[in-house]
Amino acid sequence: MAKFWGSRFQGDTDNLADSFSFSIDYDYKLGLYDCIGGIAHAKMLGDCGIIPKTDAKKIMNGLQVIAQEIQEGVFEYDSDEEDVHSNIQSVLKERIGEAADRLHTARSRNDLIVLDMKLYCMVELNTVTELISDLQRAILDFAVEHKHVIIPAYTHLQSAQAVLLAQHMLAYIEMLERDKQRISEAVKRMDSNPLGSCALSGSTLPTDRKQVSEELGFAATTRNSIDSVSDRDFLVETLSDLAIMCMHFSRIAEDMIIWATSEFNFINIDWSLCTGSSIMPHKKNPDILELIRGETATVYGNLNKILVLLKGLPLTYNRDLQLDKPPLFESVEQVQLMLPLLTRLFATLQIKEENIRKQLDNECFFSVDIMEFLIGKGVTYREAHDTVGRLVRDCLDNGQKIACLTDEELKGFHPKLTTEIRKLLNAEASVKGKKSFGSTSPRSVSQQIRFWEKRLERVSED
Amino acid sequence: MAKFWGSRFQGDTDNLADSFSFSIDYDYKLGLYDCIGGIAHAKMLGDCGIIPKTDAKKIMNGLQVIAQEIQEGVFEYDSDEEDVHSNIQSVLKERIGEAADRLHTARSRNDLIVLDMKLYCMVELNTVTELISDLQRAILDFAVEHKHVIIPAYTHLQSAQAVLLAQHMLAYIEMLERDKQRISEAVKRMDSNPLGSCALSGSTLPTDRKQVSEELGFAATTRNSIDSVSDRDFLVETLSDLAIMCMHFSRIAEDMIIWATSEFNFINIDWSLCTGSSIMPHKKNPDILELIRGETATVYGNLNKILVLLKGLPLTYNRDLQLDKPPLFESVEQVQLMLPLLTRLFATLQIKEENIRKQLDNECFFSVDIMEFLIGKGVTYREAHDTVGRLVRDCLDNGQKIACLTDEELKGFHPKLTTEIRKLLNAEASVKGKKSFGSTSPRSVSQQIRFWEKRLERVSED
Amino acid sequence: MAKFWGSRFQGDTDNLADSFSFSIDYDYKLGLYDCIGGIAHAKMLGDCGIIPKTDAKKIMNGLQVIAQEIQEGVFEYDSDEEDVHSNIQSVLKERIGEAADRLHTARSRNDLIVLDMKLYCMVELNTVTELISDLQRAILDFAVEHKHVIIPAYTHLQSAQAVLLAQHMLAYIEMLERDKQRISEAVKRMDSNPLGSCALSGSTLPTDRKQVSEELGFAATTRNSIDSVSDRDFLVETLSDLAIMCMHFSRIAEDMIIWATSEFNFINIDWSLCTGSSIMPHKKNPDILELIRGETATVYGNLNKILVLLKGLPLTYNRDLQLDKPPLFESVEQVQLMLPLLTRLFATLQIKEENIRKQLDNECFFSVDIMEFLIGKGVTYREAHDTVGRLVRDCLDNGQKIACLTDEELKGFHPKLTTEIRKLLNAEASVKGKKSFGSTSPRSVSQQIRFWEKRLERVSED
Amino acid sequence: MAKFWGSRFQGDTDNLADSFSFSIDYDYKLGLYDCIGGIAHAKMLGDCGIIPKTDAKKIMNGLQVIAQEIQEGVFEYDSDEEDVHSNIQSVLKERIGEAADRLHTARSRNDLIVLDMKLYCMVELNTVTELISDLQRAILDFAVEHKHVIIPAYTHLQSAQAVLLAQHMLAYIEMLERDKQRISEAVKRMDSNPLGSCALSGSTLPTDRKQVSEELGFAATTRNSIDSVSDRDFLVETLSDLAIMCMHFSRIAEDMIIWATSEFNFINIDWSLCTGSSIMPHKKNPDILELIRGETATVYGNLNKILVLLKGLPLTYNRDLQLDKPPLFESVEQVQLMLPLLTRLFATLQIKEENIRKQLDNECFFSVDIMEFLIGKGVTYREAHDTVGRLVRDCLDNGQKIACLTDEELKGFHPKLTTEIRKLLNAEASVKGKKSFGSTSPRSVSQQIRFWEKRLERVSED
Repeated sequence: MAKFWGSRFQGDTDNLADSFSFSIDYDYKLGLYDCIGGIAHAKMLGDCGIIPKTDAKKIMNGLQVIAQEIQEGVFEYDSDEEDVHSNIQSVLKERIGEAADRLHTARSRNDLIVLDMKLYCMVELNTVTELISDLQRAILDFAVEHKHVIIPAYTHLQSAQAVLLAQHMLAYIEMLERDKQRISEAVKRMDSNPLGSCALSGSTLPTDRKQVSEELGFAATTRNSIDSVSDRDFLVETLSDLAIMCMHFSRIAEDMIIWATSEFNFINIDWSLCTGSSIMPHKKNPDILELIRGETATVYGNLNKILVLLKGLPLTYNRDLQLDKPPLFESVEQVQLMLPLLTRLFATLQIKEENIRKQLDNECFFSVDIMEFLIGKGVTYREAHDTVGRLVRDCLDNGQKIACLTDEELKGFHPKLTTEIRKLLNAEASVKGKKSFGSTSPRSVSQQIRFWEKRLERVSED
Repeated sequence: MAKFWGSRFQGDTDNLADSFSFSIDYDYKLGLYDCIGGIAHAKMLGDCGIIPKTDAKKIMNGLQVIAQEIQEGVFEYDSDEEDVHSNIQSVLKERIGEAADRLHTARSRNDLIVLDMKLYCMVELNTVTELISDLQRAILDFAVEHKHVIIPAYTHLQSAQAVLLAQHMLAYIEMLERDKQRISEAVKRMDSNPLGSCALSGSTLPTDRKQVSEELGFAATTRNSIDSVSDRDFLVETLSDLAIMCMHFSRIAEDMIIWATSEFNFINIDWSLCTGSSIMPHKKNPDILELIRGETATVYGNLNKILVLLKGLPLTYNRDLQLDKPPLFESVEQVQLMLPLLTRLFATLQIKEENIRKQLDNECFFSVDIMEFLIGKGVTYREAHDTVGRLVRDCLDNGQKIACLTDEELKGFHPKLTTEIRKLLNAEASVKGKKSFGSTSPRSVSQQIRFWEKRLERVSED
Repeated sequence: MAKFWGSRFQGDTDNLADSFSFSIDYDYKLGLYDCIGGIAHAKMLGDCGIIPKTDAKKIMNGLQVIAQEIQEGVFEYDSDEEDVHSNIQSVLKERIGEAADRLHTARSRNDLIVLDMKLYCMVELNTVTELISDLQRAILDFAVEHKHVIIPAYTHLQSAQAVLLAQHMLAYIEMLERDKQRISEAVKRMDSNPLGSCALSGSTLPTDRKQVSEELGFAATTRNSIDSVSDRDFLVETLSDLAIMCMHFSRIAEDMIIWATSEFNFINIDWSLCTGSSIMPHKKNPDILELIRGETATVYGNLNKILVLLKGLPLTYNRDLQLDKPPLFESVEQVQLMLPLLTRLFATLQIKEENIRKQLDNECFFSVDIMEFLIGKGVTYREAHDTVGRLVRDCLDNGQKIACLTDEELKGFHPKLTTEIRKLLNAEASVKGKKSFGSTSPRSVSQQIRFWEKRLERVSED
Repeated sequence: MAKFWGSRFQGDTDNLADSFSFSIDYDYKLGLYDCIGGIAHAKMLGDCGIIPKTDAKKIMNGLQVIAQEIQEGVFEYDSDEEDVHSNIQSVLKERIGEAADRLHTARSRNDLIVLDMKLYCMVELNTVTELISDLQRAILDFAVEHKHVIIPAYTHLQSAQAVLLAQHMLAYIEMLERDKQRISEAVKRMDSNPLGSCALSGSTLPTDRKQVSEELGFAATTRNSIDSVSDRDFLVETLSDLAIMCMHFSRIAEDMIIWATSEFNFINIDWSLCTGSSIMPHKKNPDILELIRGETATVYGNLNKILVLLKGLPLTYNRDLQLDKPPLFESVEQVQLMLPLLTRLFATLQIKEENIRKQLDNECFFSVDIMEFLIGKGVTYREAHDTVGRLVRDCLDNGQKIACLTDEELKGFHPKLTTEIRKLLNAEASVKGKKSFGSTSPRSVSQQIRFWEKRLERVSED
């Protein structure tokens, strides 16, 4: 290996600099946007009389064909070209001749790359948004389907209280809704056309940047040429929004991985999301969920990369900026795989009600209900908390059920404690008893479900 | 040191767990919000008949006094208390007696801490927003004051084109405007009251969560109790918005540090932002700017901390979440120092016009103008670029000025090249000649200035 | 809050710069090392005739007293001083008069801070090393005590094979051993005295740097004055070593948190490492373990901070470097809390053998043993794997025990399969059957235990 | 784009899981090591009588051929295979038939992947080590060639003192030497064979793991089967060592980028490491250096990825671990490009002595020398510092040269100040006057050069 490099470095140093600096291996993904931008730009140049209309037409037609080929997957990128811009430019020249030499008028790669990246982000984030909605709908369907299932909820991974499974699922939907909002705002903020800012100062040619903006469907045109070419905020914001979303995915994955252990044994994950072992024939491992949890680290690292890249860079363009692409592309692509896989997870997830039920057979789950029973009788929180603490501990120590204590025995703990509390000591009662807005009571959960059915345009079959 | 620990660990292990787990050393910063939240909560408990109105009143009055003391800086936190909640609770009990024992009814620390953190973020981010506007105004004033100064602009830190200093400053204002927008959206998204979600499932007591929301000025009430206590999105979003803003600060700082070198020598930074050396008596170092650049790393690291903290945490509350506070507080506090220091920077910054002028005495700055002159004559971009490339290189090689070339000599490079271009070969002409929207031309810059004067409510003295 | 800042910024801007740039609030932790370094430096200055011997003596005595006061915790730092150096310098001057003015001869803050930081790291890392050994011993004792306990081991958090609990614990010891090695190498690499490199170029005074190195116990003297003041490698390396160690802690914590759930129910964590709930009286939460997992994020973020801080900094000293201290100090202090808490964890951990036993009552744990039985009979790996796969699945489907299958039935799966395999179908046999070096067999585990008893100087009571 | 995904997800979900989970696209880089490991393993299986010797032979020969093909770049990986192991396994089976089915005896993918990764790291890090030495030699040659050049040194990017260019270069060599040491220790620590630990518990077959270790050239055999498959320390350590090295690269790059500005104008960077502009024909941008600075962010992010990936993972193997490969491979590959490019930088770097000289024409550079002159006369540091401070400021204010002051005038500042100091006021004298070990004096620099010539086996032509 050392020899290989050794000889390569001495004999062929130009190749070395090329392979370190060429971006065509990844920025080819911007090809379609480069064409679309070029078409709008050429049209404007022609309309403004900056280049001959006939040349403008030729460029537009030429780029149209290339765009078509890219979409069909038949355009061949040439890894000997430095980047996507030069690649498309040189193919265009081959095909339409000298008119191609007019395309790069009144623009530079500094503004062009920002245009391409913004178009890429806007399109891909729209896809992400749709995929989030799909996932929300799958979770909603799952919640509705198992509307009556009660599960143990955990804090500190220790059994806490009984809740409806649907309440837990609706929490996921809330998390995803914020993700969608953030992305939608990021898209709006980046929706401003930088093309025509040229290297950094604008152009002496009588361009009409607003025409290009309209042509491309931008909501606005950037106000300042220096900011236009220096700005990478939209990438950081995109990655930070994806990082938060992946954080959510990782929490969902962790919940499911734990629920799927043989010790918890709450769920069955579909085989299509699991794999076996090369050595242990009995294994069914939740690989896809582990990889989703793992890819969260990837997206975090990518956010970190772009932030570090930008720190302390003097305005305006510096070559470091080229490296903003791989972390963006990788994150967007991974997220677009994770989302439908999670959708599939909930579309196929099976609940093992009987096993779950067994875990709920523990009066500790209802200690808060007893405490609030006492508060309802006028006891202070502090006294109620202490009373139930003693009650629970006593029963645990003596292996006794609270439900079996007599009025007399209960009074020993507190004068206001009666066998009335027996009716609180089961999961259904616990869940039904909740009254606060947003609680896990069936009524509250139904309200939430109706809210989401409307928002997500999902008609309940309930 | 080893001994010290050694003995401490054996003898006094409970203290060890305490000093590792107590949060009072930092979460005391939430004291005011804990009181404000408590007052609204107690009022609701009284109004809903969950606790006696007289007790509610006592709690409200007691918390009011504590809040007052906190604001005046006279409330003493007790580092033997576990956290800010227990600290305030126990002082309240001391002062108002048993009524205090009813405060924690129908709430838990799980929802309370989210309330406190949201209130903290909303208040502090509003301050940050105002400080950004202050900074924008200072930059705008500086731009207006030096409206006619032309500076070299750089790409790759290499001389590129002549631009108005104001255009460069307006780029900073654009960057800061996006920061403000992002923060304002984050504040809106977190503007939803979690209190009353209790441990995770809601309460059986007949609370009115919406009354509390209104009392506290929240725009909404959280819809789902599990999400309410699990959600830390607002912290990650806050930190990610601050990280992007600091990235901007670090770029501004880098520009200024470079401009202040004796080799560039473009600016004088006010002494109040510099320090000297303990060994080199002649030194005047831009310390504050270096520290601003450095603190960017701090905020990045803090964003990273919170993201990593949350990855893979099962719902709902886990004790890890306690550690979300130090990175948040440190970042908010640092940013609130950096912003006014940058404001001061621009309020006191001196421009060394003569030195800047000298750097512009280089015809290379105008090569793009000559190229666009040719394009204006109908030459293609490619041909124009090549022509000017040859022209510039020839002149550099022969130590000749383009302005001294005769029509004849110019024609040698391209038939359409005439001495007409001489009028392009100075910074004023270069800047004035720009026509595109958002360019560095005085007209475009004036437009931008007027836009910002209106937006930032700044009347120009121009 | 906004008002508070607003007025402060306008009225009192110098304070603002001070509070942003002063480091005394954290670098006071270097006070002892600043004194120790000063004593050795003053001695050398006197011995070399650079300052009068009497002055050297005065300085040394003065610093000795201050050092003593610092160790006793009675030295009062003054937050109006910029940093620890100036603080100690000014107290010294107060006490010994003009002689103090000679201390800063032939040194600068640039080399001094590196000296202080190196001394800090070396001392604290030695403490860390001892604490790691303590933890290893606690784990070893725990392993020895439960030498015969067998537990399920997991891959993908799914039941995999039976192993000795001790084998699992010995894995932790291995991880910690690498941590110790890395730290010891980092200490060796930083063991080189930078003092006397002055601002960056050395001194014209006839200093004897090697004398200072010897006095301070350094193994070497730095070779290059510019590198001496620019180098912060030792901090990054320290933090990266601590980050890897915390990663280990977080994995251990995760194992224990999962084992402590009521669903797994393998262990009892000592109450001193747990807390209760403010709302759920029955809760016993593994808070300390959750905080250890959470602090891992803190240390990761701190490593990130220092790396980002240093990126792209031109040589030599830049003020950004001041900010290397808080992330270092926080990490070192947290680690020095985590280690003894983990030691306490294993010193007090209780095993619930009966519950663990129940989980092992599952023939799937022994599928690999059956597979290797077949391989031992000459069957290929592939055929053996397939055979056992069919066997296991068939039994699972039919709710049958492999141990109950007859020779005839077994032959149906593979001609070489006999009831001989029944003796493999229990945890003891599975563990005992392992033959490979480093395996979980009792013999292998005993070997490992003996190895560590020797290495960790622990006499087994076995 | 949305449509494309939409249809794909519904119609073809299995492909989706595959493309999310297959690793062959990157882990094919381990192919050679997979073969080498397989050969040693098969030999051992044969020698120990676990599989027939003839089968062992067949496997070894088959893998030998595949390894050969991989090295020659003619082996074709099949992207329909899940990973590199299954890919090689299935090709082997095709070629040698049923014997191939015995290869995976007494090993699993859990131990195999650790083996492959360790071999990869050890080989690639050896290459990195050689490339570092190459770079050190190039810097040393450059230092020796320009041994007499004096440059301004900076702190805070402000002019500080005069130093030999060679002293600055030798600082780079020191930094790189630590990088090399760290890598060499990391390699030693990972030099322990995990193969034979199987899934996690070892094997019941009578393997000889130590034979395999020797065959593969490992220094040791891992002691504990659980740690063997869980351990990824060696990856984190590799990435952290590379991150520190890249931090060094970024500082070198920053120095050079600044030195190459037209305002500093100290150096000429070779054209092969620069590019031009698509719009500004006069530009020569230091792209490769900017990309080196930028890739530092990439490597930092990759370190972050792996650390985050591992946090909180329960022992032993979890599928998340699969994602440790892309960040490792990318970092190693980038570093192997950066190193020879930096070597080329110094091999071709041109110094503009005249421009550098001009910057040194400033008496401020010698203020420390005057101060130490006074200290040499018995003046205290404090008094000397104050005196020179006044002297320098006075001269700056009056536009006077210190060299022109008379004895009388100098005495006005301090009685011990004489025209003797005139001989200190030039860069040569300043540099020569340094006496401390490791200083920038020509004598000290020559000593350092001789040290490195010996260490790096470079014979000086001096």
